[in-house]
Amino acid sequence: MSDREEHGFTLDPRLAADTAFVADWELSRVLLMDDARFPWLILVPRRKDLVELDDLATHEQAQLLSEIGRAMAALRNCAPCDKLNVGALGNIVRQLHVHVVARREDDLAWPGPVWGSGAATRYGQAGREALIANLRR
Amino acid sequence: MSDREEHGFTLDPRLAADTAFVADWELSRVLLMDDARFPWLILVPRRKDLVELDDLATHEQAQLLSEIGRAMAALRNCAPCDKLNVGALGNIVRQLHVHVVARREDDLAWPGPVWGSGAATRYGQAGREALIANLRR
Repeated sequence: MSDREEHGFTLDPRLAADTAFVADWELSRVLLMDDARFPWLILVPRRKDLVELDDLATHEQAQLLSEIGRAMAALRNCAPCDKLNVGALGNIVRQLHVHVVARREDDLAWPGPVWGSGAATRYGQAGREALIANLRR
Repeated sequence: MSDREEHGFTLDPRLAADTAFVADWELSRVLLMDDARFPWLILVPRRKDLVELDDLATHEQAQLLSEIGRAMAALRNCAPCDKLNVGALGNIVRQLHVHVVARREDDLAWPGPVWGSGAATRYGQAGREALIANLRR
């Protein structure tokens, strides 16, 4: 099903430009942030005109929470980490999206947040594809 | 009920030092970050030994989400804002806590995150008490 056929959802082009597609789960499009500094997934509920978490219906909020848990588990499996960071900010891209980031005490931004922590280091193609394959498992 | 009587919960002393008490909701202790730069609530589930969101049982995760929505509504009522930021980081204080922050496009950190954005400006006592009274309504 194309994005436009599915509840009028279209991915924000800035999110599309910064990420690679991982999967469509029941509610969310799952994206890998193309930044090799941090193992970092972004969940975008495939509904149109969402900005804030509470723009989602209650049952969809519960589904999103379940998918956040699934993203946390996927990251833990692929990337040993000391802490997971979860955030819905949206100051720059207003389309509702949730960051789930695996953090290590020796990563480049620790203990600060990843947001605003400098320019992304893109993955090489092979590394990106291997990680995505791993995340899908 | 004292903290120690309630599921062995004790508030992390760093969270206690940076915040003022607002209320105890069904699951969460609600705290006001003592930083007049940003209207900012912190929800701390009153359970012991929680670090990550998925350390909570599923029904408690749903309750936390409901309380996040309640915190968003309380902030909107007290502090006109352009965006709400919600985050569970925990890189410094590991005790599970969720930030809910009212952001304005003219605030001091916009469009960056509030975390790591410099030193807090404490409220005066009257301003803090007035805001807390407002948040409780």
